[in-house]
Amino acid sequence: MKKIENIIKKAGTLLKKRYFQGTAFTEKEPSHLLSQVDIELHHFLKRHLSVIFPDYTIVSEEDDKAIHETGKRIIIDPVDGTTNFITGKPYFTISVALEENSLITEGHVYNPVSEEYYYADKRSGISYYNGEKINIPAISRKIEESIIIIGLSYNPVKMQQYMDDWGSLLDKCRKCLFWVAPAQTICNIARGKIDIFIDTGSSMYGQSAASLVLQNTGGKMYNYDLSPYSHKQKGGIFISGSIDHNQVITMKRNH
Amino acid sequence: MKKIENIIKKAGTLLKKRYFQGTAFTEKEPSHLLSQVDIELHHFLKRHLSVIFPDYTIVSEEDDKAIHETGKRIIIDPVDGTTNFITGKPYFTISVALEENSLITEGHVYNPVSEEYYYADKRSGISYYNGEKINIPAISRKIEESIIIIGLSYNPVKMQQYMDDWGSLLDKCRKCLFWVAPAQTICNIARGKIDIFIDTGSSMYGQSAASLVLQNTGGKMYNYDLSPYSHKQKGGIFISGSIDHNQVITMKRNH
Repeated sequence: MKKIENIIKKAGTLLKKRYFQGTAFTEKEPSHLLSQVDIELHHFLKRHLSVIFPDYTIVSEEDDKAIHETGKRIIIDPVDGTTNFITGKPYFTISVALEENSLITEGHVYNPVSEEYYYADKRSGISYYNGEKINIPAISRKIEESIIIIGLSYNPVKMQQYMDDWGSLLDKCRKCLFWVAPAQTICNIARGKIDIFIDTGSSMYGQSAASLVLQNTGGKMYNYDLSPYSHKQKGGIFISGSIDHNQVITMKRNH
Repeated sequence: MKKIENIIKKAGTLLKKRYFQGTAFTEKEPSHLLSQVDIELHHFLKRHLSVIFPDYTIVSEEDDKAIHETGKRIIIDPVDGTTNFITGKPYFTISVALEENSLITEGHVYNPVSEEYYYADKRSGISYYNGEKINIPAISRKIEESIIIIGLSYNPVKMQQYMDDWGSLLDKCRKCLFWVAPAQTICNIARGKIDIFIDTGSSMYGQSAASLVLQNTGGKMYNYDLSPYSHKQKGGIFISGSIDHNQVITMKRNH
């Protein structure tokens, strides 16, 4: 664990430096922004991780191999939240997960600007935030008190879908915000800062490490259609923390 | 200037500490979250600033006096972006502006977690980001390349208003995101990280210091109805940076 952490922190130093310098970007696909630093971090992480894990295949968002591959893999998202990185918002992370036979065994999520480090391992069943053990708070919030995050940038079709599917929940909650960096957001549920996160768009690269951080703390994670969560399934996620999960899901349209 | 900076940085140390500790919150008005730390910072800033500026009236978001008062004032927003603070997103600032006879003469915006400090003064006409002079980039972006920020948390009526008023612009831009902390967002336009910011909700407390940072760099700032900007007018703002401003405003409905 310590060896991976050292590599991620070195990559983080580079990423933080680039944040303060500014970096050029290109458009990977319509409205998906890719910065030069994603590529740079991808190569940095791949080069260093392959030395300590020679028997693992490294798969990265910037090098999208078959999602259904099995065996021993390291799943990385060099910069989860590139759009935030580019626009001057220090809410982006380096995300690294170890996977064996389709199960996540270890997860690392690191924001190098705020120096927030989440670490989880499957064997001990414990998650840590900057070295301290974390758990979803035992006291459950009411829906009227809940804070919900929706994974959304401007897209009228998606906005309508969220409102159609979850409008009654969104109308009732205390506050609902629209964010775009899943890894740290999932981790923020794991320590009770947020109650619900719904995202139709994120991929396994940004989710895998954080999913273990969350599940170790007692958080509930589903695919968007509310089937049991698999990081290999695309189509979105539904996550809940310190809130009555069963009550929440009855509020989904046609559930 | 140095004396104010020292006070703001001390307040920042406190705010950063509270971010990592977590802090309780209450609901100021429907969906407006107020944390204990807003109150704590308000008192800290007021106490220290009143010593160096005995002839200024201090007005703060947490102590809302008459917005149209004149004379010498210090306008503070102890925590601009409280919702981000509460939910684990290090995108919030301390914002302090000096005002004389309704004109902003000096502006300070500080994010204590990322240690990003914006400073502007009216006399020199210069704005700084961490001590370096900044300007809106001279090369203007096309609308298809632009990044737009909309001030929005979930609210179907507001969403519809933005789409009605600005839908043709939002459909055409590269990326449009929904954020809630105006001070740092306005400053991000001042150094070319973002091109346009439209917000129907923010108040003079979060805007005043940043407005001078922006205007010194050549950024354009209007009230939401596109009348000349006044930090004393409520109802929202429209800001543009490195983009053809005249082309953009023709895209507003009924303009």
